Amino acid sequence: MTEHSLWRFSRALHRALNERQHDDLAAAIDDNVDWAIYGPIDMFPFFGARHGKAAVLEVCRQIADNIRIHRYHREAVMLGVESAASMVRYSLTALDTNKPISLRIALFAQFHNGRLSSMRMLIDTFDLVEQTLGHPIPLPKIA
Amino acid sequence: MTEHSLWRFSRALHRALNERQHDDLAAAIDDNVDWAIYGPIDMFPFFGARHGKAAVLEVCRQIADNIRIHRYHREAVMLGVESAASMVRYSLTALDTNKPISLRIALFAQFHNGRLSSMRMLIDTFDLVEQTLGHPIPLPKIA
Repeated sequence: MTEHSLWRFSRALHRALNERQHDDLAAAIDDNVDWAIYGPIDMFPFFGARHGKAAVLEVCRQIADNIRIHRYHREAVMLGVESAASMVRYSLTALDTNKPISLRIALFAQFHNGRLSSMRMLIDTFDLVEQTLGHPIPLPKIA
Repeated sequence: MTEHSLWRFSRALHRALNERQHDDLAAAIDDNVDWAIYGPIDMFPFFGARHGKAAVLEVCRQIADNIRIHRYHREAVMLGVESAASMVRYSLTALDTNKPISLRIALFAQFHNGRLSSMRMLIDTFDLVEQTLGHPIPLPKIA
């Protein structure tokens, strides 16, 4: 049984982010990949939409410049023939401040001939912003 | 072929939220359901973790008191035997202010004997907070 494309992609992504080895990642991404991490791009310029392999590799370099992954735990995973969905809990360090950051990412991926062709990621971004700022943002109670 | 439990649950949830008809939802939820919507519970008290059918029905009543669903579009869905993952884009109205709210939800669900036994939802909560406040929150650029 062949390894699912998600495992190859995840391994290559983590290697790119933590070891700055981008060759495996380049080989695991389709030339016409469609990519989006939903969140505040003013604070995190590596969030947002990217199109094409070069743009995705460049944004992964930017992410690698900003964080280091310490641990991750896959809380849920669903695998299709050329698709995958997963919820992953990450323990990171923000490299500029050396702050620990803990966050969950929900990702929905599609693959074409084994290479990543579409990726959508959702994060509890309010929590991420507060952790990054290092203090709570005061909020009204609405309900 | 039997309908997947996700469709039954989603229909019952939307009926509970928009029509305040909670019977179908009660029938679609396991007594020992484990439920979490990750996000700022100070602002949205209906976020956070709930355990057991009564607590989940109560939180769905609170959500129904606060929003109305206008449209939703399922951008991705993966179905397993007793599991499902989906990314859904919702157009809502916040009932207290009559403000339109647009958000994506990533959900990971598990079912036991056809009833919802576990639900985890992730939302781009920073965007949701800004839409609810009606103005942007100033942020520093970190990268």
